[in-house]
Amino acid sequence: MNAPVLPKDLPKGSPQTVTTGPVTGSRKVYETVAGREDIRVPYRQIALTDPKEEPVRVYDASGPYTETDARIDLNQGLPGVREPWIAKRGYATVEPRAVKPEDNGFAAADKLVAPCPAERVVRKAAPGQLVTQYEFARAGIITEEMIYVAHRENLCRQAMLEQAEAKLADGDSFGASVPAFVTPEFVRDEVARGRAIIPANINHTEVEPMAIGRNFLVKINANIGNSAVTSSAAEEVEKLVWSIRWGADTVMDLSTGRNIHNIRSWIIRNSPVPIGTVPIYQALEKVGGDPLKLDWEVFKDTLIEQAEQGIDYFTIHAGVRLAYVPLTARRVTGIVSRGGSIMARWCLAGHRESFLYERFDEICDIMRAYDVSFSLGDGLRPGSIADANDAAQFGELETLGELTKVAWDKGCQVMIEGPGHVPMHKIKVNMEKQLRECGEAPFYTLGPLTTDVAPGYDHITSGIGAAMIGWFGTAMLCYVTPKEHLGLPNRDDVKTGVITYKIAAHAADLAKGHPAAQLRDDALSRARFDFRWEDQFNLALDPDTARAYHDETLPKDAHKVAHFCSMCGPKFCSMKITQDLRAEVLAMEEAGEVIHTAPVMSSAEREAGMKAKSQEFLAEGGKLYVDAAE
Amino acid sequence: MNAPVLPKDLPKGSPQTVTTGPVTGSRKVYETVAGREDIRVPYRQIALTDPKEEPVRVYDASGPYTETDARIDLNQGLPGVREPWIAKRGYATVEPRAVKPEDNGFAAADKLVAPCPAERVVRKAAPGQLVTQYEFARAGIITEEMIYVAHRENLCRQAMLEQAEAKLADGDSFGASVPAFVTPEFVRDEVARGRAIIPANINHTEVEPMAIGRNFLVKINANIGNSAVTSSAAEEVEKLVWSIRWGADTVMDLSTGRNIHNIRSWIIRNSPVPIGTVPIYQALEKVGGDPLKLDWEVFKDTLIEQAEQGIDYFTIHAGVRLAYVPLTARRVTGIVSRGGSIMARWCLAGHRESFLYERFDEICDIMRAYDVSFSLGDGLRPGSIADANDAAQFGELETLGELTKVAWDKGCQVMIEGPGHVPMHKIKVNMEKQLRECGEAPFYTLGPLTTDVAPGYDHITSGIGAAMIGWFGTAMLCYVTPKEHLGLPNRDDVKTGVITYKIAAHAADLAKGHPAAQLRDDALSRARFDFRWEDQFNLALDPDTARAYHDETLPKDAHKVAHFCSMCGPKFCSMKITQDLRAEVLAMEEAGEVIHTAPVMSSAEREAGMKAKSQEFLAEGGKLYVDAAE
Repeated sequence: MNAPVLPKDLPKGSPQTVTTGPVTGSRKVYETVAGREDIRVPYRQIALTDPKEEPVRVYDASGPYTETDARIDLNQGLPGVREPWIAKRGYATVEPRAVKPEDNGFAAADKLVAPCPAERVVRKAAPGQLVTQYEFARAGIITEEMIYVAHRENLCRQAMLEQAEAKLADGDSFGASVPAFVTPEFVRDEVARGRAIIPANINHTEVEPMAIGRNFLVKINANIGNSAVTSSAAEEVEKLVWSIRWGADTVMDLSTGRNIHNIRSWIIRNSPVPIGTVPIYQALEKVGGDPLKLDWEVFKDTLIEQAEQGIDYFTIHAGVRLAYVPLTARRVTGIVSRGGSIMARWCLAGHRESFLYERFDEICDIMRAYDVSFSLGDGLRPGSIADANDAAQFGELETLGELTKVAWDKGCQVMIEGPGHVPMHKIKVNMEKQLRECGEAPFYTLGPLTTDVAPGYDHITSGIGAAMIGWFGTAMLCYVTPKEHLGLPNRDDVKTGVITYKIAAHAADLAKGHPAAQLRDDALSRARFDFRWEDQFNLALDPDTARAYHDETLPKDAHKVAHFCSMCGPKFCSMKITQDLRAEVLAMEEAGEVIHTAPVMSSAEREAGMKAKSQEFLAEGGKLYVDAAE
Repeated sequence: MNAPVLPKDLPKGSPQTVTTGPVTGSRKVYETVAGREDIRVPYRQIALTDPKEEPVRVYDASGPYTETDARIDLNQGLPGVREPWIAKRGYATVEPRAVKPEDNGFAAADKLVAPCPAERVVRKAAPGQLVTQYEFARAGIITEEMIYVAHRENLCRQAMLEQAEAKLADGDSFGASVPAFVTPEFVRDEVARGRAIIPANINHTEVEPMAIGRNFLVKINANIGNSAVTSSAAEEVEKLVWSIRWGADTVMDLSTGRNIHNIRSWIIRNSPVPIGTVPIYQALEKVGGDPLKLDWEVFKDTLIEQAEQGIDYFTIHAGVRLAYVPLTARRVTGIVSRGGSIMARWCLAGHRESFLYERFDEICDIMRAYDVSFSLGDGLRPGSIADANDAAQFGELETLGELTKVAWDKGCQVMIEGPGHVPMHKIKVNMEKQLRECGEAPFYTLGPLTTDVAPGYDHITSGIGAAMIGWFGTAMLCYVTPKEHLGLPNRDDVKTGVITYKIAAHAADLAKGHPAAQLRDDALSRARFDFRWEDQFNLALDPDTARAYHDETLPKDAHKVAHFCSMCGPKFCSMKITQDLRAEVLAMEEAGEVIHTAPVMSSAEREAGMKAKSQEFLAEGGKLYVDAAE
């Protein structure tokens, strides 16, 4: 492993490292698509100690950082895996918009973070030129991104072809159309129908393409970003690298405050996953933090600024219409979306319709030219159990459905953001209404949290809701960390949030019947049953924590092959007992011995038996107690 | 707060403390039932800083340990709240069975933990004498335990009477019969129907009665216990006190190895919650750990030993019949229940039916005489996603249904244990089958874990399944800690497991529509919206962690009243913006100003509008781009 080259201008107090090297017990592998040397799909391969066991390949969003000999130079940025594909498509190179002092929140010279020095051309499609994945798909064209996604999603399905239909039938996907095998044509068709998006700005050539859609594996997003109160540049890059290491499929940079333009340049140039932002945050910074000073010009300027940098999707709160604002006044927690509250304030103060809604066509035109996907923001999502599924929330969702169709007409890719705080019994109707209103455009939810009473554990209150809504059809789950409602997540919180959401997403994939999803569970369970401790650790979502927990009570290396653990000790290990048992049963079968498998007495039979016995008892004189003398 | 008096014979290395004193931000209160000075029901009361807010009362299983001036002497044990009630019922005092060396695993004198010196009489009911809560209920008699339970469960429902029916209608309880208000008669009826149990051995007078049943609040159990590898006596008492402090409703002592009789005496005498055990563990210790040496005599002797000590419920794996054993041989993880594997081994080795099954009537007679409740063990529960809902598991469940009816006929209280590892889409059928087979006897499940891929995070993989199955109707959820599959939980793990399961249980209560369940969520959400940070922390399931997380980034006291937090900083706080917004909307309404609430344009209207525009466009010549010159 090579030490990463770090930015020259590290702000004071930044961590002096970016995490590189393979995840414990595994290595990065790339599979080249036959006949396409330019399409190399990454996986993480976990080698097992038992020679009878195949190595297990898992989906890997971590990028080059986890290569064994990773050569990382943050100043140069990652290699542009999409560069040859985009170059071929012939978009004009444009002179980028000049960076203005307000882009970095008027940071004083001594506090200004230098931008990432990596050089990239800036491209923009002309009107009428095919540019978004949606436009290509509608035109019947399979892009390299679609081929990449097909191979990536197919993970191990080749080996499962014979069982795939049975697996799908065994699952329950609530009307989704998960395929037995993913072809590039299937991906194209899903994108063309608007049921999936491949967020990939033509100016983010470093992206390893991925899909977000109900018929693909459930994805997760991690939020990073500094705020006015805390956090800094290199810290955010490390948070990006750290969160994709543990499985984040996309990352949202929610920075506010100073230096956000330049911090973003470091993030985007060094990110192999799609990056999302909420442009209204930066627009607000530019007008000094007063929502009432926002206008279309500053917002438009911000969209172009970020689109040129390469942001892959924008949260646009265009569904917060003036008419909905009064519906929130009597809520227990009002409006809890930052973007939503900003726009509501703007609308109400001037008694005017949202400029995001009124200018939606123009927003589409700007985003289309770079293939920035829409993430239509749920500015009126409930912030408490009490406010779940109310008129404000569902009114906005209907407007998002309306806007989805406008965006499609304009050639844009669209997903829809969802709640929030919702008790378990009100989750399903959210999914059903979203599918109906938004024409099956991918749903992207924040949790939802299933109770409000556990600050400090909201990764868990929301992990429950996330697993459920993922099963019902949500395509991407935005993580919640233990610090939600309390503070900014640190490195440990980010990891806990990501792992919790990988659990939720994977539990959803299993329940939907994704053909190859259970392979990892089965491999881990076999390792557990065989007491292959190292394999059990390495197959875990977090091998390091699994190993550390085991070692707390049984640290000696010898115990890694021990046929028991500290929970039950050697005598009480059910696994050990059953291994003996299994050998015994199988040997008996082998020898042709008859095993007693008579059906168990049914309740009816037993009742009949008891009735007979009771009659017999009465016939014998019916004494309940027999004299000692008898 | 008084320092607790600790056992004189603390084993080496034991922690020198038992945690006492109120949970942060709250105090213990007792409410005396009108006209019954002997029935004082405990709650925890959280005072809020806003004088307009009522203090919030929450269910409290923590016993006298959390009193402000708790006088705890572990040598004396807790006061016997049930002593006068039991004394009045007139059971014979019996000479307890003499303690034998094997009861403590033949611990050598220097390693023998002294028994708890607290003196208690041992009682036993005569045949025909009413003793179990089930028998009293069937006889139409309302016991003190039932009155206690009714008041305890009613928590805040008095204040909610008008909204109760609406709350119930808003929830979804899958056919349960959650009442608007809990009367002692309702409790009696539920117990008489076998739909609820009140585990309360007549020799455990220290128990504060509680109910486990689908129409009551969902309960959680925490497992403690030493194993041959690690852990000791006072450590286990502290684990008990620690787990009930955070909300465990019952505790199972799963100790194996030496000193288990004497450790148990410390636990039971100092426990205000029902204690469960798995007697086959101790029976196996008595025969030197070889399952084949087990027989009815040693098992029976163990039942009596533990019933006399005061254990409130026994896990009995009587459903593991010989016929089912071969069904487990081809499973991915065989048998993962310790008790199940022991009995399977015993059955198969001699090709004989389980003595637990064959002697079930006698087991009932022993347990009835002390009112030890059955927890019919699921010895064949699945240990992996691959084995969920298979023939072995469901065959055993059918047998448990058969045995439930036998136990009821014998006058015993019964609950049924359930899985285990089950993917989300296969959870509901477990609940439905259990209700059907077992005549609505309470279900008590271990999770279930919804995926196998996250050792180190199995509190979360299982918390998801637990919340769901709790919603569907499971009456008690057995916790899983982060150490599951890896090692014995320490103090932190126990707390994490308990809090995770309190989340699952509470999320289930909310979804079922329990009339007063949402009061705490609402109070916390209001505190959040009002920036009452202290109230938000104190209303949390874990006030200490919530406060610590907040203080990591904003430690100054001034920030506790700050109208923002470190997540968004002062400018971007949606809550702050909405508070202004709310004031504005309400002022406008007050002033009679018309607020724009015109309905949003529907999709159809918008389409019609676009069509009109497009016709207009065509009528105007239909040029897509206008010449620059024009």
